[in-house]
Amino acid sequence: MTYDHFFSAALTRLHAERRYRVFADLERIAGRFPRAVWHSPDGPRPVVIWCSNDYLGMGQHPKVIGAMIETATRMGAGAGGTRNIAGTNHPLVELESEIADLHGKEAALVFTSGYVSNQAGIATIAKLLPNCLILSDAWNHNSMIEGVRRAGAEKKIWRHNDVDHLEELLAAEAPERPKLIIFEALYSMDGDIAPVKRICDLAERYNAMTYIDEVHSAGMYGRGGAGIAAREGALHRIDVVEGTLAKAFGCLGGYIAANADIIDAVRSYAPGFIFTTALPPAVCAAATAAIRHLKSSQWERDRHQERTARVKSVLNAVGLPVMPSETHIVPVMVGDPERCKEASDLLLAEHGIYVQPINYPTVPRGSERLRITPTPYHDDKLIDALGEALVDIWGRVGLPRRHHALAAE
Amino acid sequence: MTYDHFFSAALTRLHAERRYRVFADLERIAGRFPRAVWHSPDGPRPVVIWCSNDYLGMGQHPKVIGAMIETATRMGAGAGGTRNIAGTNHPLVELESEIADLHGKEAALVFTSGYVSNQAGIATIAKLLPNCLILSDAWNHNSMIEGVRRAGAEKKIWRHNDVDHLEELLAAEAPERPKLIIFEALYSMDGDIAPVKRICDLAERYNAMTYIDEVHSAGMYGRGGAGIAAREGALHRIDVVEGTLAKAFGCLGGYIAANADIIDAVRSYAPGFIFTTALPPAVCAAATAAIRHLKSSQWERDRHQERTARVKSVLNAVGLPVMPSETHIVPVMVGDPERCKEASDLLLAEHGIYVQPINYPTVPRGSERLRITPTPYHDDKLIDALGEALVDIWGRVGLPRRHHALAAE
Repeated sequence: MTYDHFFSAALTRLHAERRYRVFADLERIAGRFPRAVWHSPDGPRPVVIWCSNDYLGMGQHPKVIGAMIETATRMGAGAGGTRNIAGTNHPLVELESEIADLHGKEAALVFTSGYVSNQAGIATIAKLLPNCLILSDAWNHNSMIEGVRRAGAEKKIWRHNDVDHLEELLAAEAPERPKLIIFEALYSMDGDIAPVKRICDLAERYNAMTYIDEVHSAGMYGRGGAGIAAREGALHRIDVVEGTLAKAFGCLGGYIAANADIIDAVRSYAPGFIFTTALPPAVCAAATAAIRHLKSSQWERDRHQERTARVKSVLNAVGLPVMPSETHIVPVMVGDPERCKEASDLLLAEHGIYVQPINYPTVPRGSERLRITPTPYHDDKLIDALGEALVDIWGRVGLPRRHHALAAE
Repeated sequence: MTYDHFFSAALTRLHAERRYRVFADLERIAGRFPRAVWHSPDGPRPVVIWCSNDYLGMGQHPKVIGAMIETATRMGAGAGGTRNIAGTNHPLVELESEIADLHGKEAALVFTSGYVSNQAGIATIAKLLPNCLILSDAWNHNSMIEGVRRAGAEKKIWRHNDVDHLEELLAAEAPERPKLIIFEALYSMDGDIAPVKRICDLAERYNAMTYIDEVHSAGMYGRGGAGIAAREGALHRIDVVEGTLAKAFGCLGGYIAANADIIDAVRSYAPGFIFTTALPPAVCAAATAAIRHLKSSQWERDRHQERTARVKSVLNAVGLPVMPSETHIVPVMVGDPERCKEASDLLLAEHGIYVQPINYPTVPRGSERLRITPTPYHDDKLIDALGEALVDIWGRVGLPRRHHALAAE
C-alpha cells in the first residue's frame, strides 16, 4: 500500500477550496523596518510589510538586538535543556520576573510560544479544578480552544463579547462549582475589545476565575504596556494574564502571569512546559529589553495609535471597506477567498506591498479580508502609497468601494 | 469562593511525593563549555554541567554563535509573525532545506519545539489517514503520546523495542487499514536504541507508515549526523523523521522531514504550526550553521563517543550502578526519589557538579536516576572529579556500590 494519495488528496482539497497557502519568503532588514527583501520566484525584490505582528517594530529596536547579540556572545545559542534539565538560564529567570512586574502579578512562566502558553496554561489550570466548567468566548483563538480540549473539562461557549449571555451561563451553575472564564482582551482579526470590567463583575458575582489573553494588547495598551485589563483598571481583578513575546515585544515565546501558587502549579504539572527545551538566553534577554523599554517609553504606543488613525482615515476617504475597529488592527473586507488572494498577490507583485490574505480557517468563510497592521514606522508616504495601491487593486479584482468616496474623486 | 487552595493542594501533593522540582538558575559561559555560573540562593558559584542536552556543545560553537549574531544584526530579533502572516523568513527557508538534505528527504518543516513537532506532526498525519491505527512503542516520549491523543485515532502500544509484539499487533489488522508506526531511534532516559531495520521490515510486510523520533540521535550518529536510521542503512525506508534543533544542534526548535506532499499537508493542516509565530531568523541561521558544521566534521561525534566510554569506564571501575547503555547517555541508578534529589543537591552544593535528578514522571517510579551526558568538552580531569564526587556522595546518602569494586579499593 502507498500512503501518498491520502496526502495529495488533502492538498487537492485545499486548492479546490482556494485556501492553499503560499508563504512569502521574507528577509527583514534591521534598521529599515517595515522594509524587507522578498525572495520571489524571480529573485529578491524590495517590499514594504503591512501585515507584521511585530506591531511596534521592537524586533528591530537597537536595545533589543543589542541584548540578543550581547547575550549570545556571552552565553551561546541554545539553553541546552528543558527547564528542569540544565535549561533554566539566568536571562529567562530575569524575564519571568520582568513579566510578573509588567502585569502586577506575583510570578510568571515563560513558554516557547504563545500557542503553547494558552494550550498548556488553560488545560493545566482547568485540570487542577475539580469538575471545572470552562466558559469560553466564541471568538477565542485556536490555541485557547486547544487548551480547552486538552483540559477535558466541560465547556460552554458564550456569544462573542456578549456579557448577558455569559451571565446566563454562569447563573445556571451551582455557585460552588469551579468556573474558569477565558477570553481575549483584543480580538486580532477584527480589532475589537472585550468588556473586561463587566466580565470581572460577573466573575466576582458568580465566583469564577478569569483568564485573559493579552497577546495582541500587551506592550501596546495600558500604563507601561501592561495591556487592556490594565487600561480598564481591572488588572488586579484578573487571575491569569496570558501574553506573547513575539508581537509587541518583537521576539519569540509566550507566558502566563498570576499568583505564585498558580504559576508554580502550572510549572509543575504542564507536560507542554516540562518536556520542552527552554528559550535561548539571547531570546530571553532581547524580550526583557523590549518589555523594559516599553515600560518607560510611551512614544511607540502614541505613534502606533496615531499612525493607525491615519491609515483608517486615508483608506476610508477613498471608499475602501475598512471594517470598524477600536484598535491598531485595520481589517479591510473582501468577503471572497479567491479575490482576497488575488488582491494580495497583485499588491505584492506590482506594488511591492505585502499584506497577507486572511482566509478560512483564520476567519469564517465569507469574511475573508486583508488585515493591515500599521506600525510607528509607517510614514505618511508609505500610507499614501498603500491607499493608492489598494484603490488600483480594488478596481482590477472587481471589488466595490463606497459611492460617496467614488463621487468625490 | 477562592481558588487558591486547589493550587496549593496540588503543590502539597508534589512535596509529599518528593517530586517537587526546583530549577537551577544557570548562566552558561560561551567558550568555557561545560562550565557555567550557578545563581544559587547564596550568590553566583562556578559549576560544571554534566546533564546538558547540548550534547556536542554546539550551542557554544563559534560558527553557531557567529551565525546568530550576524543574522540578528542584519535582520533583527523576532520573525514578526506566523509563517503565513509575514513570519516566513529567509534563514528559516534555508534551514528547512538543510534539514531535508540532512535526512535525505524531499522537504522539511520547522516548528518552535521538538515537543510541538511530535504533537502536531503525529496528530496531523494520523488525522489525514482514514481509520488510522497508531502503533506506539511503550516508552515513547510524552510529546508523541500527546500527538496520539490529539490524533483521536485508535492506538495500540507495543512493548518497548519488542518487534515480535509489534508484529502480533500488525498481523491482527486488515492489510488495507492505514497504520502508523511511531517510535524513537534512541530512548533518552536509558540510552537504548530501536531495532530500526526490523521495524522497517515489518512496516513493509504489513503496509504501515513509519515515523521515527531522532531527537536524541540526529547530529550525533550516522554519516554527517543523519541519525540512527541512517547509521542502520534504513533512512530511505522511513517515511517521517522527526528531530530537534535544541540538542545536538544546540539551538531551539523541532522539525519533521518527509516527502513533499506529507510536509505540505502538515504545513497546511496542523493548527499548532499554522497559529504560531515562526522561529527568529537568528535562531534559524544558528541551527543551520550547526547542521552544516556537523555534516562535514566528524570530530565532535568521535570525541563524544570516546568521552562517553571513558565516563562509563571510570564510574564502573568504582562500582557505581551505571545502567547498561549503548549510547552517549550514562544513567546511574538510584531507585528512590528522595535520595536521587539529595545526591543531586550534594553534588551541586559541595562539588560544583550539576546533574539533575530524574524522577517520576520523566521515568517510572522506582527507577529514579542521575542521567549523565558527557560531551566532547568534558576532559579527563572533569571525568575523574565526577567519579570521585559520586563515590563521596554515594556513601553519604547510603546508596550501594558493587562489591568487587569496593574490594579492589
